[in-house]
Amino acid sequence: MTATEATQTNPAVPRYLSGDGAGIREFLDKFDVFLFDCDGVLWSGDHLFPGTNETLELLRSRGKQVVFVTNNSTKSRADYKKKLESLGIPSSTEEIFSSSYSASIYISRILDLPPTKRKVFVLGETGIEQELRSENVPFIGGTDPAYRRDITPEDYKQIAAGDSSLIDPEVGVVLVGLDFHINYFKLALAFHYVRRGAVFLATNIDSTLPNSGTLFPGAGSMSAPLIMMLGREPVSLGKPNQAMMDAIEGKFQFDRSRACMVGDRANTDIRFGLEGKLGGTLGVLTGVSSKEDFESGEVRPAAYLDKLSDLLGSE
Amino acid sequence: MTATEATQTNPAVPRYLSGDGAGIREFLDKFDVFLFDCDGVLWSGDHLFPGTNETLELLRSRGKQVVFVTNNSTKSRADYKKKLESLGIPSSTEEIFSSSYSASIYISRILDLPPTKRKVFVLGETGIEQELRSENVPFIGGTDPAYRRDITPEDYKQIAAGDSSLIDPEVGVVLVGLDFHINYFKLALAFHYVRRGAVFLATNIDSTLPNSGTLFPGAGSMSAPLIMMLGREPVSLGKPNQAMMDAIEGKFQFDRSRACMVGDRANTDIRFGLEGKLGGTLGVLTGVSSKEDFESGEVRPAAYLDKLSDLLGSE
Repeated sequence: MTATEATQTNPAVPRYLSGDGAGIREFLDKFDVFLFDCDGVLWSGDHLFPGTNETLELLRSRGKQVVFVTNNSTKSRADYKKKLESLGIPSSTEEIFSSSYSASIYISRILDLPPTKRKVFVLGETGIEQELRSENVPFIGGTDPAYRRDITPEDYKQIAAGDSSLIDPEVGVVLVGLDFHINYFKLALAFHYVRRGAVFLATNIDSTLPNSGTLFPGAGSMSAPLIMMLGREPVSLGKPNQAMMDAIEGKFQFDRSRACMVGDRANTDIRFGLEGKLGGTLGVLTGVSSKEDFESGEVRPAAYLDKLSDLLGSE
Repeated sequence: MTATEATQTNPAVPRYLSGDGAGIREFLDKFDVFLFDCDGVLWSGDHLFPGTNETLELLRSRGKQVVFVTNNSTKSRADYKKKLESLGIPSSTEEIFSSSYSASIYISRILDLPPTKRKVFVLGETGIEQELRSENVPFIGGTDPAYRRDITPEDYKQIAAGDSSLIDPEVGVVLVGLDFHINYFKLALAFHYVRRGAVFLATNIDSTLPNSGTLFPGAGSMSAPLIMMLGREPVSLGKPNQAMMDAIEGKFQFDRSRACMVGDRANTDIRFGLEGKLGGTLGVLTGVSSKEDFESGEVRPAAYLDKLSDLLGSE
């Protein structure tokens, strides 16, 4: 579905709920499941927004299922639980859904790989590795120090020849996430695996990653050289790609009409909910998108709040 | 000028000159200057094509100016002269025009930088550094080992704050070439310099680099993450960008109507000559483009040969 189609499904000006107690009660009653984007909604960087815990507690006390949905591929669900705990947010691993987990599920349960092509070449960090292990998917690359080196004249020849000392014939997937140790050698290998027929996947394609109040290279920036060289895009397993929604639904078995996506980015979070045909979408103004984005942008939530904790105003 | 416009200026089927002695003589007589793409025309990798030297000698003996034009930014003109010599091709540094030299001339003579913003942040190898030095352009980055390291939590804060320990306030240009030591830290710095107002330049934007009979990441692949993050393209100083043709003309002061571009790639070499309104373009089939590309592709040379040394057939 394109942005234009998404707009057609939700052309109305979103309802502004901050301070509208009756409106909030009515909105909350419509849903059994709340999918939360995290950074920009629950916290910013290492700063927990005031009222986040009370709001999550309110939802849980009313029997709502809470799911934390993150495109951050560098962390596994277990790592992410630690991150939530370090900010003082109680959670269980089962409530967490990351793009690295989404990608692992996609590879292990949806991709129908030939038995001799089940290995994954990873560009990324430990979060991806942990989730691949949790699904028993074999992989190479990733954080292996053997790949953290310069390319040599001998490498060119061996890669060109498909020499098995460098090119593993069992690799059938290249999975690209955020890799803080990206280098020329790994990019060259990833390129050659895809040219040799490997499926080209990305945990997510966010071009940037927020940190310290500004932006840094994101997972999409790791795919960018490969996209340019190959002339095609990877299948992305993060928001707003619906493969992630399908994986979440596969796990939680919820009724989409009774689910609401909460996020700060119209183009990823809100689009993700709209294209997934969830019953509702809720924007918050504590992150990337502005009031104007939500009220008159191409992709608009059903409702929005100044901040998530304004939901507490229903009581 | 777009590909379509280029086609309009040269819609005819190119003349096939191999074996056509009279045709070759007529063609050669039209030009005083021959601009040569190198790899795929004079040699392939480390293999000199038979007859290359005899052909260059023929042209020189008839008083033609020969210019070697290369997008390879990793080598300086002096390095490239050594490469030519190692293959047994006599040449002078003055006959060589590389994208790193083109970029250096553009920065020093065409960009009108404020006196406090004259420094260049380099993503690339020693070829760029040598050429910047030859034009007295100050630079940082490049092959400096201080940039060959992982990003640290402290770096994020300092980059975000514009701390002068990491962000040099005198940087007014980011120049991206092929960097075999590309890393996350350098990409983050380049991104922040451009966001802070630095001019975004590339030596060239070839997505791939031929080696060992196959392809590896090219200079364009180093720009790709920045293009995705910034949402815009760099000014490229290599073929087919006309900034390079202007720089060549600025140096050699030739009559464009009496100059011919010789190359193996329709989309870069031949386009470069057509868009530069040279008197002629000559394709050879010893590299990337095929007979079909030249005869019925979007961008067609005025004439083509099976191989460059077929020019010897004029005698």
